[in-house]
Amino acid sequence: MKQKPSLPRGTRDYTPAMMLRRNYIIAHIKEVFEKFGFLPLETPAMENLSVLMGKYGEEGDQLLYKILNQGDFLKDIQPEHLQKGSKLFALQIAEKGLRYDLTVPFARFVVMNQNDLAFPFKRYQIQPVWRGDAPQKGRYREFYQCDADVVGTNSLICEAEIILMMHEVLGKRLGIQGFEIKINHRKILAGIAESIGAEGKESDLCVAIDKLDKIGKTKVEQELLQRGFSEQNIQDLQPIFSVPEKNEEKIAFLEKFLQKSSVGLEGVADLKQIFEYVRHFDNQTDFPVSVDITLARGLSYYTGAIFEVKVKNSAVGSISGGGRYDNLTGTFGLQGMAGVGFSFGLDRIYDVLEEQNLFPAQTQSTTQILFTNFDKESEKFVFPLLKKLRDEGYKAEIYPQSTKLDKQFKYADKKQIPFVIAIGSEEIKNSEVAIKDMRTGEQKRISLANLLNFLKETLQ
Amino acid sequence: MKQKPSLPRGTRDYTPAMMLRRNYIIAHIKEVFEKFGFLPLETPAMENLSVLMGKYGEEGDQLLYKILNQGDFLKDIQPEHLQKGSKLFALQIAEKGLRYDLTVPFARFVVMNQNDLAFPFKRYQIQPVWRGDAPQKGRYREFYQCDADVVGTNSLICEAEIILMMHEVLGKRLGIQGFEIKINHRKILAGIAESIGAEGKESDLCVAIDKLDKIGKTKVEQELLQRGFSEQNIQDLQPIFSVPEKNEEKIAFLEKFLQKSSVGLEGVADLKQIFEYVRHFDNQTDFPVSVDITLARGLSYYTGAIFEVKVKNSAVGSISGGGRYDNLTGTFGLQGMAGVGFSFGLDRIYDVLEEQNLFPAQTQSTTQILFTNFDKESEKFVFPLLKKLRDEGYKAEIYPQSTKLDKQFKYADKKQIPFVIAIGSEEIKNSEVAIKDMRTGEQKRISLANLLNFLKETLQ
Repeated sequence: MKQKPSLPRGTRDYTPAMMLRRNYIIAHIKEVFEKFGFLPLETPAMENLSVLMGKYGEEGDQLLYKILNQGDFLKDIQPEHLQKGSKLFALQIAEKGLRYDLTVPFARFVVMNQNDLAFPFKRYQIQPVWRGDAPQKGRYREFYQCDADVVGTNSLICEAEIILMMHEVLGKRLGIQGFEIKINHRKILAGIAESIGAEGKESDLCVAIDKLDKIGKTKVEQELLQRGFSEQNIQDLQPIFSVPEKNEEKIAFLEKFLQKSSVGLEGVADLKQIFEYVRHFDNQTDFPVSVDITLARGLSYYTGAIFEVKVKNSAVGSISGGGRYDNLTGTFGLQGMAGVGFSFGLDRIYDVLEEQNLFPAQTQSTTQILFTNFDKESEKFVFPLLKKLRDEGYKAEIYPQSTKLDKQFKYADKKQIPFVIAIGSEEIKNSEVAIKDMRTGEQKRISLANLLNFLKETLQ
Repeated sequence: MKQKPSLPRGTRDYTPAMMLRRNYIIAHIKEVFEKFGFLPLETPAMENLSVLMGKYGEEGDQLLYKILNQGDFLKDIQPEHLQKGSKLFALQIAEKGLRYDLTVPFARFVVMNQNDLAFPFKRYQIQPVWRGDAPQKGRYREFYQCDADVVGTNSLICEAEIILMMHEVLGKRLGIQGFEIKINHRKILAGIAESIGAEGKESDLCVAIDKLDKIGKTKVEQELLQRGFSEQNIQDLQPIFSVPEKNEEKIAFLEKFLQKSSVGLEGVADLKQIFEYVRHFDNQTDFPVSVDITLARGLSYYTGAIFEVKVKNSAVGSISGGGRYDNLTGTFGLQGMAGVGFSFGLDRIYDVLEEQNLFPAQTQSTTQILFTNFDKESEKFVFPLLKKLRDEGYKAEIYPQSTKLDKQFKYADKKQIPFVIAIGSEEIKNSEVAIKDMRTGEQKRISLANLLNFLKETLQ
């Protein structure tokens, strides 16, 4: 039976060219996480649906991929069960699902291993997740998340270190230009709502204010009225529409605006402490951090600082984000497990590096040197040399068959191998090699004795 | 709603301690694959069931994890469909499944990308696979495979390089003692069957001969009779029961025994060529390769050389294996795609390294240095130092809260951090640190100026 193979909608292969670039990003993220004391964790792709359901809202439950029970899953099913509809019927024949994010599996892990872990527990996790969302450009049904969390502490050192890690990965290592770390605090949002007499309504407030740049002040005020805010609320809110630019002035402004809201002042104090910590760590670097009181992500779980990183003048959305929560594991019966976490958006960072042309040359190819294959005689001469180069740490291969040279050079070209070494009877006789730089087209002969030196100078 | 969370049967979390060790193994495997010119590939966890079904036999189809269609999957289902039974009903409500191995997704990838790939195409792939097998000790429903394949060539250089790679990863890098690379050839097996007048019956022959060590010659002969071999077949087979030990003698023996079987002699010629290639690559090393004419894995797809690696005196089964096939992609309509591949058994290699106590110290912990936290004053002193050590490449962290020192040391202990540095007011005044080697319990004071040198000498 022949068939034309295909991929499920919304999924994709990571080709070697993509993998080399992804691995480059991941290697830097991992190195930085580990330098800051985070330990790697991996959880299974399949989780019990009892662990996953109800954690992501009604919509999330629908988007979960459910796995059919093995064996005779219809055993206890009667025709009338079909009447229940797909949603309920699914739970009769599927006990497991694919993980939807890395946070719920992490919470499950912490609860199941609470007696063995060293708290505060710092873990990172880089794995794919699956969501049955409608696929669209840039949105896949399988995608990677790169999370790091510290749980079991309220220390704001963790928040400061998140800023350091974002800066080291995105700026110092990957070289991204114009990225901005935005920070806000859930308590500041609550304080603003309280201060204008609309306590507890920070979610509605944020949704409206967030549109300020897009729709303008008048329309934001209209929306606030529609959302049940009073004229008085809106009048009291006026200063918020003209917050100063600079962090210090913004914080001074907030201290004044929030003076009657103790929760609001707590939020401001936290931000001040975080900034102070960052300065203690590194007084030299001008960290691109700015307080943004319209930043409001994850309001259903974040209770402290909130982070988001965006790149100026880029079509790519936020490339990193996170925040502090005070109850990671309550749903699994373990209370008071506070922590703070963040994640890097691998696919979006990839897009930014493409946009800014920042992938280094070594992410274009793995093989550095291809030996052409003339005949059995030349193989004998090439093999020990090939071994020697590999032992020196070079990535090198021989074209496995003696075929037209043209074809062999095309192979090098397609694989973007920078150097091709040809050794025929002439070269063997003279103990030399003919080497071609595929990037410049330049070709020369080098004595065997000089080859290692030449490669060292050119490739390292 | 509180609930006690659990993991699906047959799955497991990879804890940080396990991850550090697994990552150590994987890093070596990847480096060697890339040094030999293999490129990384990843395919999605979900494949269309049309791609997966029928590729792993009836049993495999049953063990595939099938994923319920999203949305109203019961839409076109009538009560009478339930009569079809679970097996057929599954295909009405599930279009996708989890990958069962890395070979079928690889074949699908090659077919879908045949116009873009550089052939011979060398790829490696390290990803989990899922099988609904009955879980038992050491057998999980999610486990990793580490495959490398070259497709689009018949060159036996590839087989020689597989031996080199197995030797480099298992021997030179991981240091495994007593491993043995067994090699056989499908054509030798076919030739033996042909030579004893039982052409085409090599599978039955192998199943029986494979038991020689366990059940002895007499019982093997009984089994051959039961499997339909004649007395004459068995008499002609006698020399096979006393094959010489050494590779050269074994090959000489086979050349004689198979003299009338052209297919058998082709197999012997291949093995000779592979051995010759290995020697050309490296005449110094005594590669632990032995011809084993009872080795018979993957007879439904291997058509050339067959490999398997076992460790002497170990309870762990085969830790690597592979072979040559002549038709990877025929089932997807692309004929004549020959290649050779092999894989490392990550979990089993892990077990052998445990057994032989071969994991190096750096796989015990990531953080190298913990700074204790006394108070806000000491934090100010520690932070710039912490940053400096991280900039120098050390993995270092500060305990995020000022709490009982006892607790902080316990944290270091649990996380197996080798050095704890304590800085109190006394140390700040004297510009020094108190450093404790957690492995020896030794404690001393070092001036700040000498700290970097001390760490360099001790940790690197």
